[in-house]
Amino acid sequence: MQQKEKSLNYKKYFSFYDHLSDSEKEMLERHTNTVTYSKGENIHNGSDVCKGLMVVKSGSLRTYLLSEEGREITLYRIFDGDVCVLSASCVIENITFEVFVDAEEDSEVIILSAAAFSKLMSSNIYVECYAYKLATTSFSNVMWAIQQILFMSFDRRLALFLSEEIKKTGGDTISLTHEQVAKYMGSAREVVSRMLKYFVSEKIVELSRGGIKIIDMQKLERLV
Amino acid sequence: MQQKEKSLNYKKYFSFYDHLSDSEKEMLERHTNTVTYSKGENIHNGSDVCKGLMVVKSGSLRTYLLSEEGREITLYRIFDGDVCVLSASCVIENITFEVFVDAEEDSEVIILSAAAFSKLMSSNIYVECYAYKLATTSFSNVMWAIQQILFMSFDRRLALFLSEEIKKTGGDTISLTHEQVAKYMGSAREVVSRMLKYFVSEKIVELSRGGIKIIDMQKLERLV
Repeated sequence: MQQKEKSLNYKKYFSFYDHLSDSEKEMLERHTNTVTYSKGENIHNGSDVCKGLMVVKSGSLRTYLLSEEGREITLYRIFDGDVCVLSASCVIENITFEVFVDAEEDSEVIILSAAAFSKLMSSNIYVECYAYKLATTSFSNVMWAIQQILFMSFDRRLALFLSEEIKKTGGDTISLTHEQVAKYMGSAREVVSRMLKYFVSEKIVELSRGGIKIIDMQKLERLV
Repeated sequence: MQQKEKSLNYKKYFSFYDHLSDSEKEMLERHTNTVTYSKGENIHNGSDVCKGLMVVKSGSLRTYLLSEEGREITLYRIFDGDVCVLSASCVIENITFEVFVDAEEDSEVIILSAAAFSKLMSSNIYVECYAYKLATTSFSNVMWAIQQILFMSFDRRLALFLSEEIKKTGGDTISLTHEQVAKYMGSAREVVSRMLKYFVSEKIVELSRGGIKIIDMQKLERLV
């Protein structure tokens, strides 16, 4: 579903707005749309066709790598107000790797089309700079995830995931299945379930249909 | 060893040179030095102190991640004429991860000091853009390496490494120890030795004191 919003606050979503000429502003506005995605829908699939620059208005997106064998490695998630530049990778020639982006919940996304973004990048150094700066921030996010995967032992990683998740959502219960936790962590369900069982035996968490309940936050934090 | 070169071709090494004002050019030249490093010397160690922007004049550098337990993951190598921006990570606020850089051979490196680079970045949008563009290129290089590590099976990875190495150096023999190959691939010596033995049995390579000799390039390429 795609819709035009006359009232969109462009300045809020595109920090380079003040550096645009009148005709560039006009182009930006003409090529920006709000699109809604359903939970689980694929938005960007790593090929050289791409949607453009995305700003999450509501909901959240997940970026990940996908191996030939179908294994997923979650890189990072994008929430309200965050910008996704990897979905515009086709217009940034220095980005040569393939990334996938899915809607993690029902999401509203503001999209500046790839073609318009590309034109603005080549006509305006501030837009170009903005794009590469965003890519550099993504780089740091990705490196964080990669270091978790490559270096940390799995108990620490899972403890860190649970502790960050509970801080994000509040309350004491994480409403995710073991399958979902595994997906977010780039791991396998079996590995997650096994470690959660160990956490239960250590009286750190309790498991129920509703999810994973943290019963000893201090112990969890000590693992991290 | 540090030395001042009056005759340095700044335009060749710093592509933003033409966008600098006279006083910025003067600052660039005053804060650029040629430094020599010995093979194996550590140049940048991931902390927030950093040397600055580096251009390799001769030799080569290696960038890598280092785990708390001392495990190294090689990200990419930098050769003649290439620029290393991660050694200036302290002045690029969006780079928040720690990377290490070593001289892989005796190397001559042109260094623009971190302080001067930082000043030029904040006064000149072209320098800022240059920095983030370089970081984005590093991002792609790193993602390539990471995908090798996370997704490819080890025989393909080793075959790819050997085939790229032989293309780089020419001839038919790779003068590296198993230990060195393991280090470059972020693997263990035992794993490399075991796979090389398998390659020997497949009549793909021959092993000698001098290194690894490729005897069937076609077979090697088929593995890749």
